[in-house]
Amino acid sequence: MNDRLKNIKLKPVRYYSQESKGIDLTMGEGHFNSPFNAKLKAYEALLKNNTKYSQIEGNVQLRKLLIEKYYPAYDFDQNIIITNGATQALFNVLLAIISSKEDEIIVLSPYYPAYLQSIILMGGTPIVIDSEKTHFKVTVECLKKVVTQNTKAIIINEPNNPTGITYTKEEKEMLLKYFEACHLFVIIDEIYNSYTDDTFISFSKLVNEELRKKIIFINGLSKSHMMTGYRIGYVISDDSFNNELKKINYLTVSSISTIMQQAAIGALEEEYYIEFIRKYYLNNVKILKDSLDGLNIDYVKTTCGFYIFMNVSQFNMSGLEFCCYFSKHYQVALVPGHLFGDSFLNYVRISCSNDIKDIIKFVNYFTDFIEKNDFNKK
Amino acid sequence: MNDRLKNIKLKPVRYYSQESKGIDLTMGEGHFNSPFNAKLKAYEALLKNNTKYSQIEGNVQLRKLLIEKYYPAYDFDQNIIITNGATQALFNVLLAIISSKEDEIIVLSPYYPAYLQSIILMGGTPIVIDSEKTHFKVTVECLKKVVTQNTKAIIINEPNNPTGITYTKEEKEMLLKYFEACHLFVIIDEIYNSYTDDTFISFSKLVNEELRKKIIFINGLSKSHMMTGYRIGYVISDDSFNNELKKINYLTVSSISTIMQQAAIGALEEEYYIEFIRKYYLNNVKILKDSLDGLNIDYVKTTCGFYIFMNVSQFNMSGLEFCCYFSKHYQVALVPGHLFGDSFLNYVRISCSNDIKDIIKFVNYFTDFIEKNDFNKK
Repeated sequence: MNDRLKNIKLKPVRYYSQESKGIDLTMGEGHFNSPFNAKLKAYEALLKNNTKYSQIEGNVQLRKLLIEKYYPAYDFDQNIIITNGATQALFNVLLAIISSKEDEIIVLSPYYPAYLQSIILMGGTPIVIDSEKTHFKVTVECLKKVVTQNTKAIIINEPNNPTGITYTKEEKEMLLKYFEACHLFVIIDEIYNSYTDDTFISFSKLVNEELRKKIIFINGLSKSHMMTGYRIGYVISDDSFNNELKKINYLTVSSISTIMQQAAIGALEEEYYIEFIRKYYLNNVKILKDSLDGLNIDYVKTTCGFYIFMNVSQFNMSGLEFCCYFSKHYQVALVPGHLFGDSFLNYVRISCSNDIKDIIKFVNYFTDFIEKNDFNKK
Repeated sequence: MNDRLKNIKLKPVRYYSQESKGIDLTMGEGHFNSPFNAKLKAYEALLKNNTKYSQIEGNVQLRKLLIEKYYPAYDFDQNIIITNGATQALFNVLLAIISSKEDEIIVLSPYYPAYLQSIILMGGTPIVIDSEKTHFKVTVECLKKVVTQNTKAIIINEPNNPTGITYTKEEKEMLLKYFEACHLFVIIDEIYNSYTDDTFISFSKLVNEELRKKIIFINGLSKSHMMTGYRIGYVISDDSFNNELKKINYLTVSSISTIMQQAAIGALEEEYYIEFIRKYYLNNVKILKDSLDGLNIDYVKTTCGFYIFMNVSQFNMSGLEFCCYFSKHYQVALVPGHLFGDSFLNYVRISCSNDIKDIIKFVNYFTDFIEKNDFNKK
């Protein structure tokens, strides 16, 4: 048996969703249904018996659409591989990079838990940079302290789960300049990048020829298109990296569902519905933020993503205590911060990808909690 | 970059299918459409918006049905994980077992090419036993010569791709007795086991409590239910191994498509159609075998699977030459034997999972080839 499995404890975020029968603010999964066109295209594929093996790298029309729409500087034939969700996208990328314990991968905390676990499973060594002291952002200064000969890659999640943090154009340019001089891969997980405002510029818009060889983008339709159960993710990378990923895709899954890829093609034709969802969840975040601001509550200030990451030590509670309290007294399920890194014991993550009524109910419960416990007078 | 990828050349069987516009006898993919009930259930899932994340280990109803129908000695909650096809099933199992170069995995040649490549990708060492001299079957004697302290597992594919070989009950009992005394996992890939006759008994029917801890079954609906493009595979294993596989499934794919799992539930309700397909392809194999026998042609004698593996050195040709000849003169695509192991340069694989008319056309072309070249007089 692979000994590395002993070091992996399965505790996905979704386990916390089972604790409440009231409001579930745990999941990284929108409450809206998948786009009508996605369903229609899947149905059409079934009717037409378009149900045989797909190409290893994914359906050509889907690859073309994704490139045109989201990564126009890349080529549909040389730079994209369709995977079973962003999870498999990340897994494949790490498998392409890690081959021994010496291989170090830098992860910024707070992080999506599977980053660390996947690195451990692959047999590499995760190097965690705590980003709390640097306003939840990585800086060139932080990086210089940890990058060694053994550093193989860094994972940047933008907008970050759980904080929602994004980088400004200037911050990106400084990081990219540093990466240009380094021998490492930069894995940019953009799975939440539809939940950004108009000032947001993807790293992909700032990458030159030299950086293209190092930078790998991970994305998918799960969060943006309400298609978590369809399992459509993808990796954007340089020609030679893409070629290695193709081998890996063949050996890990052979190819992904032909029918679900047709659904993805359908989903990409929807504009208004996706834009509506984007605005709806960003508005949920805004409502919650405004309420927290009104109550003088401290949390990680962001405008992106669909989570709020709140330090609950201001209530003399750990994240887990806060979650238990809200589960017990208000039947609200939240995720304790320690899932996103050992140093976030005092945080909780609140997902806003729900019906607005749930967000308003939570605000009411939260106000009740503050008043009852007299926190504002402290 | 993971150096192990350099040793992997991507040359899947499907690449040979592109060489011919006539008859394609290369693919491990049936020509019939997927079951009506599979399509209906997928459509129902879409209509009902049953499109959110699935459980990591797979839909509970699907797990129950698969266990009841195919592996009744096992438990749906403790012994089965749904994967993206049998490919991911194998990958997950190898990842659970292999953690270093010292880990040896025994593979019998001729083998399905991805076995070897996946072991190399995982960083393990494949140990190939050439089964040609032992009537294309592994024996306890062969095994004793290669099993060492480092042997972690053996992969048995039954019926074998490409030979169609299966083992008798007595042969199985001897192998199992040996495995009971060994410290290794036995991975039994049964993806073709619907293409067997009434005398076939799966290893799963002969496994006692002690052996259950060691034996792992891989299967799926791609070949039996014409569902290659749906990507439904699964692993049957002991509780503790299953627990590790669950971690791996979470980190490799998170879960597989909710909609495709509903389709699989529908497919399992079909009995007559699946039985019809089974008999149809077994009949194709029989027609081809009878014709080869009539022409005094030597090939691997089997009654199972849907391939014929033929030694073409009797025609003073290599497998590749034979494939090129048939592609050029008859527009028939076949797979050269060297894909299934270095020592099978003189073989070709002929798939019978096609319309019976294609099989008959091939028989006519083959007869023409024999007569033109005067082989029968040799």
